[in-house]
Order: sequence, then C-alpha cells, then structure tokens
Amino acid sequence: MPELRQNIITRDWVIIATERSKRPDQFARSRPHPIVPAYQDHCPFCLGNEDRTPDEFYRLSDLTGWRVRAVPNKFPALAATGERIRKVEGIHRSMTAVGFHEVIIEHPRHDITTALMDVVDVENILKVYRQRYIKIMQDPRIEAIVIFKNHGEGAGTSLEHPHSQLAATPVVPFQVRARIEEAIRYFDDTGECVFCSTLKDELSSRDRLIYESEYFVAFIPFAALSPFHIWIFPRHHASSFHEITDLEIFDLAVMLKTVLAKLYFGLNNPDFNYSIRSIPLHDRPTDYFHWYIAIVPRVSIPAGFELGSGMYINSAIPEESAKYLREIQIPLDSP
Amino acid sequence: MPELRQNIITRDWVIIATERSKRPDQFARSRPHPIVPAYQDHCPFCLGNEDRTPDEFYRLSDLTGWRVRAVPNKFPALAATGERIRKVEGIHRSMTAVGFHEVIIEHPRHDITTALMDVVDVENILKVYRQRYIKIMQDPRIEAIVIFKNHGEGAGTSLEHPHSQLAATPVVPFQVRARIEEAIRYFDDTGECVFCSTLKDELSSRDRLIYESEYFVAFIPFAALSPFHIWIFPRHHASSFHEITDLEIFDLAVMLKTVLAKLYFGLNNPDFNYSIRSIPLHDRPTDYFHWYIAIVPRVSIPAGFELGSGMYINSAIPEESAKYLREIQIPLDSP
Repeated sequence: MPELRQNIITRDWVIIATERSKRPDQFARSRPHPIVPAYQDHCPFCLGNEDRTPDEFYRLSDLTGWRVRAVPNKFPALAATGERIRKVEGIHRSMTAVGFHEVIIEHPRHDITTALMDVVDVENILKVYRQRYIKIMQDPRIEAIVIFKNHGEGAGTSLEHPHSQLAATPVVPFQVRARIEEAIRYFDDTGECVFCSTLKDELSSRDRLIYESEYFVAFIPFAALSPFHIWIFPRHHASSFHEITDLEIFDLAVMLKTVLAKLYFGLNNPDFNYSIRSIPLHDRPTDYFHWYIAIVPRVSIPAGFELGSGMYINSAIPEESAKYLREIQIPLDSP
Repeated sequence: MPELRQNIITRDWVIIATERSKRPDQFARSRPHPIVPAYQDHCPFCLGNEDRTPDEFYRLSDLTGWRVRAVPNKFPALAATGERIRKVEGIHRSMTAVGFHEVIIEHPRHDITTALMDVVDVENILKVYRQRYIKIMQDPRIEAIVIFKNHGEGAGTSLEHPHSQLAATPVVPFQVRARIEEAIRYFDDTGECVFCSTLKDELSSRDRLIYESEYFVAFIPFAALSPFHIWIFPRHHASSFHEITDLEIFDLAVMLKTVLAKLYFGLNNPDFNYSIRSIPLHDRPTDYFHWYIAIVPRVSIPAGFELGSGMYINSAIPEESAKYLREIQIPLDSP
C-alpha cells in the first residue's frame, strides 16, 4: 500500500509510491558526463580570464592567487540600481525588480566540483557566501536572500565552470511567508521551533540520517519530495545563514563536501540543485525559524500531477534512500 | 529594468527577466523528435494489445471500435482498495494512500498527438475525463481529483502512445487549500471571483490573449511562471470541471486542439504538461473558485532559485509570448 506523508514544515503531502519504487542505485546517472579540461580559453570564469566578467564585488585570495570570486551575473534577473516602486493597477501588482544577482565562482579550475574539492576550497566558498550575505543585507531595499547552486545541464545550468549564485529580492516570496506562518503556528502550539523538533526526531529515530558532524546534521526528510531530497540543518537554533561562525563554516564545509561526495559516488555525479534558506531580512532572528540547506538531485521529473496539485509523487522510500547514502563510502584516494 | 509581477490568484511573485529575455522563437525545440510508427507491437496502449493493460474501467467506442479507454495505471501511486487511515505519531503525519490513479488512452493510434487529432477525438477524450471524474467523485474517500497530461520525455513520460492520467487523492493538497483561502479573501474584499476578475481583465486588455472560443478563453497569465505558461478559463463561472456540458466539451475540444497546435507549430512540438484544476470534492460549488486548465511547455528548467524561494524567473515577456502564439497560423492541411 502506498503511503501519504505530510511534511510538518511545509504542510505538503507527498505520495511515497511503494508500488513503483525503485532500488536506490537505479537512480544513478547512466549518461556519461563530458570530459572537460582544467582550463578553457572561452570560459569567463577560468583563471586568467578575469577581464571577461563584469567588475567583481569581492575576491578571496591566498598566496597562490584568488580562490573564490563574487561577480555580477552578466544577465541579471534583478537590477542593482534603482528604487523599489510598487504599482497596483486594477488587478495587476508589479514592482521594479531591484536587487542583486551575483555569481560566485567557486574555484579557479574549470574541471572540479564540490564533491572533489579540498575542504579548504569549500570553506572558502562558504566564507564568500557569508561575506556577500552580510554585505547585501545592509541594503534596505532587500527583503530576502537565497544562495543556490545549479550543477549540470539537467539542473538548469549551461556553464560548466563550478559556480553558485546569490539572488537578493525586494519582496518576501509568498512560499517563504506561508512557511513562516506555519512555523509560528507550530511555535504557538508547542513552544518549540518546528525545525528543532524535526531535528530532535531525526536524531532519535536515526532512520533517515545520512551524515552527522559536530554542528550539522544531514538527513532525508520524512516526506521527501523526490528521491534523495536532502536537508542539512544546523544543530544549534539560528534563523539566518549569516550568523554562522568560522568554526561552523569549517564544519559545514566537511559536511557539504561529504554529502555531495556521497551523491557523486553513489549516484554517478548526478545533476543537482542546492539552496540555502534563511529568515527574511526584515524579520529579526526568532525562536521559530531555522535556516537550512536543501539539496535536490535531479533524478526524477516533476510532471502534470505536480503542476496540477502542488503534491509530489516520490518513487523512492526515504528510509531506503538514506540508508543507501549513509553506507556509500567515499574512496580513500578522493581529495 | 526587470520587473516583478505578482500573480493575484496564487500570490506568487515572478521575475520577468527582461535583461535575459529571448525572442519567442528561440524557445522552439531544436532536437528532433524520434519518428514513431502508427502501431507498436510492444505498446500496451496500441489497438489490438488491449489485453496488456489491467482491466479497463471504461471505454468510449464508435462504429470503428474503441476511441478512448480508461484503465488503471499499472504502477499506481494510489491504491484503489482500502480505507483512509490517518496516523499521527509524534511529528509524523501519514495516511494510507488510497485513491485512484488511471491512465486515459487517448487514441488507438500510437503516432498521434492532440494538436493533430480530429476535433471529435479531442471531444472523446474530454468526455472520458468527465465520465471518470463524475464516477470517482461518488467515492467518499476521495477529496480531490486532478486530470493531467505529460507529453514527451522532458515532461516526465516514457510512454510515447498518447495518454493522459487522472489522480484522485484522499487529501486536499496544501497548495489547493492555500489558494482557496486566497480566493475567499479576494471574494470578501471585492464580492467577485478572482478568476472571473482575471478573465474580465484579460478580455479588456487583450495583451495576453492567445485564442477565444464561445465558452473558453486562452491566455498567458500576467505573472506567467515560465515562457508560454498558458491558462484556459471557462467564461462562465463554474467551480468544477465535471459541470461541463456537451456543448462546452465540443467547444473546449476546438480550443484545446487549437492552443496545442499553436504550440506544436510555433515551438516545434515541445514537451509539455497540462492539468485541469477544480475545487476539492467536499466543497460545494461556490462563488469564489473557478476551474481551469494550466498548460506548461517545458522550454525552461526551474533550478536552485525556484527551489530556494518558490519564486520563478521567467525569461520571456508574457505579452510577447502571447502575441507570438496568437499569430501562429495552423497549416491548412493539418487535420
């Protein structure tokens, strides 16, 4: 009998379709990835081609040169200059799309990915995320910041060079607002943060854990939307990513590299997206909202059912997906 | 300057990314479709292979034989027998996934698609949709029914034979509930159905219209989530698809075929999904909710930004997309 599960954080129902469930390894990528060189002449993100990006906002360097750069997106979805102007004309609500849309170039090399980087490289990326977040949150026009990564063509990127993005919007997305309302309601009813309750539950059942570090826990949600949908929660309650300390950044670098390496070796380098979700900027840090990272490998395609209902069909059993990833060993000769 | 637009029905904000917008014809499919035969020996949906599907629920026939069949999905996401049993264990909410998951085989031929069918074929498909909807809504375990179609691999189907699906769930999806709450709020504030107001606005501005028939209007929403995201609204207020009359079914068949043919010829047979959204079954027909069809051609990939915010970036301008489709002529030699 298939099972419906409700995500207590999002209130979304998911169908865990046991009748059509596959073995975890059946979700591994079968198409080979193209082999790419360490440097590409025409790549604007490669070492030596720095003049091909718009003027950079920030760079993190060591003795060897730059390690991570933050630059404007060449085709920004949000304009850096201008005022927030709301228009309401009849039933049309619109607004100038002011904000920031940045690219974080994760590494000087073209042919590397987070799963195979040194921990210090991942640490550098996270430090740049935090630096940009803290800088941008000073801008009073900005209401929400989302940091995200698209890896592979199936995940919506055409650029091979490892990079992530930051989008800072002048509105709070409706979905974020709805989730905050649910989190407040849960807090009213229980006196607890719904994310902290979820974490406590995952640590006690251990059925869906993937990896634990000193400050973070990675697990498959009870009502995962898709196979290998992963959440990484900080153990200590904090509402926004920018509150992360240096010590936590080092720990998160190990965590993120480990989880992405488990996907890389367990599912043959799947296309994936990740995003970092925080409380909107005009809310103060609160007891009821908790920042976290969501990772979604693109191993299934949301289709007409999802379009028509907002519900998902997951053809993998979360406990089995988690066990599979928990047991994936990262090869010793991997960096 | 890019623009943010809010969808008054869903309250979702969308970034209309003018800086990265493409010409409408740049969204046309470039990969060729494989050529498929009119009959395939191994296809369970082809004429003559009827014994390869589970026992059919319904068939619509004419003098030549069956035209449309409704059969159980061989790997159903929902189980037809069993009771609704809710479990709440700590923070876990789950439920037996009872319901219906049917396949509607749209045509005896393997190599046809809605855009190229005779109007009477599309009429037959819609009649079977209505028949199954009315039948299934008698089951007191069912709370919501969504009818949908996945066309092409990129839209999540691996079966070439033209088919659509019906899923009947024992819960109201959270997204549907949230939209109903917004629709009620709009009704409170204005005394009007938000869908009727939207329709009135589209008919008066005409900027985003694609096609009009006697009973239906097709347009690109003001805050379309993606290029060529299309809504088809009935002109007369009705809360549920099953209320459709025979006359309206004929008219909708012309409408659906026309809109899908405009996509077929204008974008070179793109992969797409459509879904029919109605009010949940335990709500009576109301003044504030209006059924409709949403069509989403898969010409862009939602990625990390969408995952992390629930907002979308649309790299096409809705008015330009609508104009392009409005002007697409369907070849005269097309059926």
